[in-house]
Formats: sequence, structure tokens, C-alpha cells
Amino acid sequence: VLDDVPTPAVVVDIAVLERNIASMATFASNTGLLLRPHAKTHKCWPVARRQLDGGAVGLTVATLSEAESFAAAGCRDLFVAYPIYADPARGARLRALRERCALRIGVDSTDAVEALARNAGAGLEVLVEIDSGHHRTGVDPLLAGAVGMSAERAGLVVRGVFTFPGHSYGPGMPTGAAQDEGRALALAATSLRDSGIEIDVLSGGSTPSVAHTDAGVVNEVRPGVYVFNDAQQLALGSCASADIALFVHATVVSRASGRVVLDAGSKALGADRPDWILGFGHLADVSDAPIVALSEHHGTVEWPSHSALPSVGAAVRVVPNHVCTAVNLADELHVVAGSDVVDRWRVIARGANT
Amino acid sequence: VLDDVPTPAVVVDIAVLERNIASMATFASNTGLLLRPHAKTHKCWPVARRQLDGGAVGLTVATLSEAESFAAAGCRDLFVAYPIYADPARGARLRALRERCALRIGVDSTDAVEALARNAGAGLEVLVEIDSGHHRTGVDPLLAGAVGMSAERAGLVVRGVFTFPGHSYGPGMPTGAAQDEGRALALAATSLRDSGIEIDVLSGGSTPSVAHTDAGVVNEVRPGVYVFNDAQQLALGSCASADIALFVHATVVSRASGRVVLDAGSKALGADRPDWILGFGHLADVSDAPIVALSEHHGTVEWPSHSALPSVGAAVRVVPNHVCTAVNLADELHVVAGSDVVDRWRVIARGANT
Repeated sequence: VLDDVPTPAVVVDIAVLERNIASMATFASNTGLLLRPHAKTHKCWPVARRQLDGGAVGLTVATLSEAESFAAAGCRDLFVAYPIYADPARGARLRALRERCALRIGVDSTDAVEALARNAGAGLEVLVEIDSGHHRTGVDPLLAGAVGMSAERAGLVVRGVFTFPGHSYGPGMPTGAAQDEGRALALAATSLRDSGIEIDVLSGGSTPSVAHTDAGVVNEVRPGVYVFNDAQQLALGSCASADIALFVHATVVSRASGRVVLDAGSKALGADRPDWILGFGHLADVSDAPIVALSEHHGTVEWPSHSALPSVGAAVRVVPNHVCTAVNLADELHVVAGSDVVDRWRVIARGANT
Repeated sequence: VLDDVPTPAVVVDIAVLERNIASMATFASNTGLLLRPHAKTHKCWPVARRQLDGGAVGLTVATLSEAESFAAAGCRDLFVAYPIYADPARGARLRALRERCALRIGVDSTDAVEALARNAGAGLEVLVEIDSGHHRTGVDPLLAGAVGMSAERAGLVVRGVFTFPGHSYGPGMPTGAAQDEGRALALAATSLRDSGIEIDVLSGGSTPSVAHTDAGVVNEVRPGVYVFNDAQQLALGSCASADIALFVHATVVSRASGRVVLDAGSKALGADRPDWILGFGHLADVSDAPIVALSEHHGTVEWPSHSALPSVGAAVRVVPNHVCTAVNLADELHVVAGSDVVDRWRVIARGANT
């Protein structure tokens, strides 16, 4: 039973998880969008399998080692949504991956294109990454044609364009970010066509923005966090409390001077805290109880006056701010149906950064 | 060679590491302080062994699973500087640990004392945790006697008091935090003596404050970060650039729109960023080049105008903000002497949170 799992522990409610997976699949299907969920969130094969069984066309990953983990688990269609720089070692890994599954790689520079062509081999399928307003990787949409031409000249196959509208991560931002995404992808597609390159993939999507996707332009979406949701998604209004499928279970270890301190700190919850979030996560079952201070193994809760202080030794559930980093800190997820532990899922791509 | 290690990778300069270990050992010895370094920083046996060979009296850890890792590796004297709540499962683990090594546990409440006595067995040695100004765990020093009496009544053995002067982590704070620590430990020792409890351990110390320790009061120190140092220690003035022993090696993956983006993000560097630090880490070999935006696999560098932009594919070294969380994200450390990779050390206690 759940009380026997040592804290801190990452616990997944399987009913909520499966409902979240089904809802997104239904949304994508009704909207005419291909769904290629980002697996960096869960890094688990049982979650990926449920997504693929539910109609996802393949998975998105961020690194070659994530791709290797999911290819080994059985995934046959992977998009590495990242501008991989293929030195000879990464080139050899890409060649091995291409023999196991359909593979697409992101590119946003001529240098990366040339390294891919040299070391990963001709015929590799790529998507040009463009910047739709997040200002991270990705070229200006008007330069998509130039990058695409360099790729075709080098012997790669340009399948499409992609963007991550990460500026959706801010209060009031998701709708506008989705509009930016649609406009930028349309511009990039035109830029490629003007360069003589026909594409069939226009890929976007983040969990906050996906509901607002311009399906007249975009034809593939890559949300990740929606399977579990977290405090960031709650704050952005992209999920309700009932849609949270993952919690960090913790124990109250101290009440000295009235401070409630949990054994879940930054090494269990992650330390992500955008300035529009109050605290480093919050309690799931007590309203208005944020974690206001975080060290590696301590989470200090600002306990609300409307609720009696918990005793030392009490069990609590924490909603982390950013579920992707919390999962990456765990070796396994404890799966519950109600209060019964029904399974343990290994985080197969934990730490898969390279 | 180093160029063959896939990025992002955690790389340790063994010469600097060994110098840092020797310097702290010399300081402790000259000052008459017992050194019990915190192993949560490195989580590696080859580092711990060097500390113990250099005169450390034992190791400090934060969790039972860290204690189990280091006991299995060969450490014979461990202090868990944390108010462990010993449910029956943790009690059984504590009993097993006591058979392998000398063990001390932190306590800061009667509830935790009673759980330890019930489940971990009589005669367990404890240190009372007090708050010296960090306001996390630990009782008011004047309450040390009350906690100590409850421990002795329950059949535990009170060996001393300890505190973590974590408020040393702020510009201009280390000296004052060390003074607070000395005063608080002296008060707590008096409170215990007034309750009829004689103690022999007064334990404090953090890397920023340890140089200012009041050796008239404190007799044991537990710094951790000093073995590697990091951007926080640099900002606090507790080390120089030449004392940084650990770097995250990264590759430039994008230069779109002039932004320099590395493949080291929050899943490699950690996301710790106190408000007195500019950025999420900085480049080791380029001055004034902080990481100003961080996602899971992207670090965006604000590149200084005095330096030519690096090419896509270039290798760089990043100094992380907080080395403890960066190490906990890695499965192994790559050890270099100059530019030769001479060893790989497994992070045996990575993820050891329970």
C-alpha cells in the first residue's frame, strides 16, 4: 500500500493519467491535428505506450539518448525536436537509430546541417526549427528557406518546420502564443516553398497553447506536460486541480517554531520557479499552502491559519511546479488506483541528457 | 580524451579537487576543529575516501539512503544531519545501519525522538538540531534541553547539538552567520547542561561561513560544497575562480538571431538561482557570459560584445550555480588531469532521497 512507499516518492494516479491521455487524443482527432507527444515529461514506456495506443503518430524527444531509450523500448517513430550537433560520435548514434525507427531531427543552422550530412548520412529527414516568439533556438521564419536549401543541398530531406511556442508559459499568454505559432509556421512554409521545397509537416504545440492551435496552418502538435499536469499548468489555467495526475508524496519532518517542513526539497521537486508562481509547489490537499522555501531535502510550507498544523510524521501530497524536472529526479514512478499501489514504472530515460 | 565525452557532461579537475580537500583539512586541523564534510555535494566514494584519508573524522549525509550508500562503500562513521522521522521501515533501516558503522541522527522534536526510540532501538546516538538563523529545521537554542531530556528519557543518547547556518548564503552574510552559529550552539549547550545532559559535540559549518567559525565554541564543522565550489561560492567570496573544480561541459547548438544556446539546461545544471546571482551559471572561459535563460535542454548565454561568437559545435565549460544539484543529475563524473580523462566516478548516491 501507499503508506509503505518511502518518502519522498513520485506517485501517479492512473485514472487521471489515462483520462488526460484520452482527452488530448480526442482533442487532436476532432481538430484534425496529428499528435506527437513530447516524452521528456514522463520518460516512461508505459505512458508512451498508452499515448501511442491512443492514436499518437509517434513520440517527440529532446535528446539522442531519450530517442535511444524509447527506440529500445519499442517506439518506431521519433522526432528529436532539438538542433542536434552531430559530431562523429553522435553521427554514429544517429545512423544506428535510423536502422531501428523512422527518425526526424531538428536543424536551425547550416553548420548543424553540414555536420548531420557528414556524420549521420544522406537522406536523413529534418525539420527546420523556427522562432515563433520564445526566442531560444530556431531561425526567423523568413530564413527557413535558406536553412532548408542548405539541408537539401547537403543531401538531407526537409520534411517540414517546427516551433516551440514557449512564450505560452506566462499568465494570459497561451492564446497569443498559439496565434504567433500559426503565423510563424505559415511564414516559414512560404519561405520554404519560395525556395522550391515542398513540406508536409507544420509542427507546434505546448500544453498551455495547444487548445488554441491554429489548425488551419498547424498539422502536428507536441504537448508533453498534459499527461500529468503541474502547478504551472494550474496557474496558467490549462488544467484544473482534478487533472493533476502526479504528486510528490512527502513526510512532515519538523514543526520547530511552527514551521512545517517536509522531506521533499529541490532534489525531489526540482527548483523551477517562474516569477508568476507563488512558491516551489503547493500541497494538494490543503488550500493555500505553498512551499515558500526550498533546500535540497527540505520544503518549508507556509501553513494556512484555517487549517490545524499537521503532526511530525504526517504524510502529505505536493503538486510540483514543473513535472518534467520532478520526474527526471526519480528512478521510478509509483502508480496508484485510488489508494492501492498497482504498479511501478521505471523512468527509463531519467538523466538521458546527451 | 575529453572531446570524446558526450555533452552535457560533469567534469572534475582532480588537481583542484585535491587541493580544495587538503586546504580544508589543514584549516580544520590548524583551528582545532573536527572535520565531518557533507557528502551530499559529491555523492561519490572516491571523493569521500580522499576526505577521510585527509583527516576527516567521518561523513555527514542528509538522508538514510545516502548513509546506506556510503556505509556500503566503506565509511565507518556517519552523521545524518537531518531530523529523520523513523516509521517502522526507516527504523529497520536505521538498525541495519547501526550494525555497519558508528551512526548519529538529528532530532528536533519529541515526536521524532519517540519514533526513533520505538523503531530504531535504544542507545541510538542523536544530536539536537537548533536554529541559528536560517529558520528551517531546528528548535530555538533555549529548547535544546527540553528535546534532549525527551531523548534521554526515551533511551536515546544525546551526543551534542548541531546547526546549519544557511543564512550564510547571501552577500555579506557569512561572517555574521558564523557568529550567530557560535552564539546559538553555546546557548544550546548551556540549555542541555542545565537539563543535566553533558555533550561533547557542537557541530556547525557551511562552506561560506566555515572560515569564520567561532572555534571557542564549535568543535566540528560540516562544509560540503568546498570540494568543488560553484558560482554561488564565487559570488559569496568563499572561493576564487582557480578553486572551481567542477564544470559542466556543453556544446553550442544554436546561434540563431545571434543567441548562443548550449545543450546544458536545467536537467544538467539544476535550476537553483538565488536572487543575488546573475543567471543560471556562467561560462568558465569567457568573462561576463552568464546563462540568462534556461530550459530543460537549453542554456541561453548572453554573449559579451568583447568576445567573438563561438561557432555551432564549439565546446564550452559552464560553472553551475549550485554544484550539489548539478552532481545529483549526473550518473557519473568525468575526472580530468589537465585535458586527459583519467577516471570516471560513479555518483553512488545520486537520487538517494529517501
